[in-house]
Amino acid sequence: MTRMTILTEAELRRIVPLDREAVLCVENAFHALATRAVAMPPILRLDIPEHRGEVDVKTAYVPGLDGFAIKISPGFFDNPKIGLPSTNGMMVLLSSRTGLVQALLLDNGYLTDVRTAAAGAVAAKHLSRGDSSVAAVFGAGMQARLQLEALALVRPIREARLWARDGQKAEATASTLAEKLGFPVEVATDPKAAVAGADIIVTTTPSETPILKAEWLQPGQHVTAMGSDAEHKNEIDPQAIARATYVADSLIQTRRLGELHHAIAAGLVAPDAELAELGKVIAGLRTGRTSASEITIADLTGTGIQDTAIATLAFARANAANVGTTFES
Amino acid sequence: MTRMTILTEAELRRIVPLDREAVLCVENAFHALATRAVAMPPILRLDIPEHRGEVDVKTAYVPGLDGFAIKISPGFFDNPKIGLPSTNGMMVLLSSRTGLVQALLLDNGYLTDVRTAAAGAVAAKHLSRGDSSVAAVFGAGMQARLQLEALALVRPIREARLWARDGQKAEATASTLAEKLGFPVEVATDPKAAVAGADIIVTTTPSETPILKAEWLQPGQHVTAMGSDAEHKNEIDPQAIARATYVADSLIQTRRLGELHHAIAAGLVAPDAELAELGKVIAGLRTGRTSASEITIADLTGTGIQDTAIATLAFARANAANVGTTFES
Repeated sequence: MTRMTILTEAELRRIVPLDREAVLCVENAFHALATRAVAMPPILRLDIPEHRGEVDVKTAYVPGLDGFAIKISPGFFDNPKIGLPSTNGMMVLLSSRTGLVQALLLDNGYLTDVRTAAAGAVAAKHLSRGDSSVAAVFGAGMQARLQLEALALVRPIREARLWARDGQKAEATASTLAEKLGFPVEVATDPKAAVAGADIIVTTTPSETPILKAEWLQPGQHVTAMGSDAEHKNEIDPQAIARATYVADSLIQTRRLGELHHAIAAGLVAPDAELAELGKVIAGLRTGRTSASEITIADLTGTGIQDTAIATLAFARANAANVGTTFES
Repeated sequence: MTRMTILTEAELRRIVPLDREAVLCVENAFHALATRAVAMPPILRLDIPEHRGEVDVKTAYVPGLDGFAIKISPGFFDNPKIGLPSTNGMMVLLSSRTGLVQALLLDNGYLTDVRTAAAGAVAAKHLSRGDSSVAAVFGAGMQARLQLEALALVRPIREARLWARDGQKAEATASTLAEKLGFPVEVATDPKAAVAGADIIVTTTPSETPILKAEWLQPGQHVTAMGSDAEHKNEIDPQAIARATYVADSLIQTRRLGELHHAIAAGLVAPDAELAELGKVIAGLRTGRTSASEITIADLTGTGIQDTAIATLAFARANAANVGTTFES
């Protein structure tokens, strides 16, 4: 018999909010990725084109952690037509010593939202200027909201601009964010205007053609591109990738799935260029930003180690607070 | 909110026994693999050498099926020292149309046992002589037991021999099987003696050096090798693979993980040899056995399509019998 804890989305939302501890847990995960013998196999990906569906399965093992997560992330892009969210999914936390299932985290993608936003905060914390106060966000979905919330945890943001193709959605998201965060969030009429004068730009769209032009970028800006997690997605002008100080979450992934992929395809970056990774910057093994006038870009595709980190945090908090349903099989 | 069905191992054992319908469901899965646009990505594998652990994640989508399974199979080989089974795991069944979780099959590896044994039966049904009545089984574990039970579903077996390194375990397994199946199951003192005069030989061990020699094989015999599912495992003399009529469950897998892998490494089979696959034999697209004197070998590494097939069967039976716990998250 295996005894496991089942946690629902509602329980997970209660015990794992997007807060400084969530950011710290993801920061520690990237540090471990750079400094420990982490095992992070390539993403398993299944495509179901008939239903515009795709499923990613990610995992990572960190020596020393009691458990490791296996995350199942489906994205079915016709779901909104029938009133369902495009993305959902769950995580399974297994014991690192026995392989037994410790917990089923039925989060419908919530923990992914949190760990993805937390990675944005970690990137900004290590790559943006410490005095960054103006943020620009591209997109008006869940990550547009969470990335700005996450930024506000690590930088003294006092103003934000939001640009999205759907102006109405942009207005709604901007007003929600302004109310929640307590600083003005204006809708920008075009992406160029959003970027002008911003300290940090976060792109959160599923765009397949660049929406951030290299010539718009100004000295000292930091860009976090977190929309691309598949070969065909591309938010950032490859010229910008080639010119800026570039940092990947995982080079193995960004060479194939991230913004870097398109810069390599355009012949602007060598396929084997020795670029920096976020964990190495955190651990002091690589330099990130070295001056206030440098332009930095973080290319985030999402890593299994973030899932293991957030699932471990969730399980620890569930145990401490005695939350969840015990199930035996 | 996602509404899903949770099925325990006990419930799954009750509603999915190893029977003719389980064999048929796996047979249909192999047929689909050969004839439909099945998507079956490479296995995701995570190794945790500190704890002699490994985890495989498999999946496959069959056009037309309502769901697809993602199976998590851990194997932690120090578990028996602390009274736990080496292998366990679970399956998640997702909707092919929406990606929503339909069912959590907390089977602790039981459904894998069933679908693996069923594949042995399918291989024997399509490759062994119809009058095969004497079986030899190498190994004395769960699959040794289930493979013989599965063979008896598809061939008129009236006698079996069992050989295993652990003689005591062999005796216990043989006596259990004889009682259950109603025909004599003798323990063979050496593998050569077990093979002599057998019609079907099934190897179920985790051996890393060949335990079945090519020169022992006699005209008309069929061999199913199901022990190797990893690069370092090897039960069958590569010479036997080279000389016999060879059929893989999935060539992409057996070239890398199966018995074929070692025959290729030994230079006895070309890496790109156009060999047969079980599904193609079932569908009549390739020939399997063409005479009573031929020696046939089925090389089974285990495929995600078997998991999707057995999970679909389990979910359908659970719904029909109103078995399981409904859970919302």
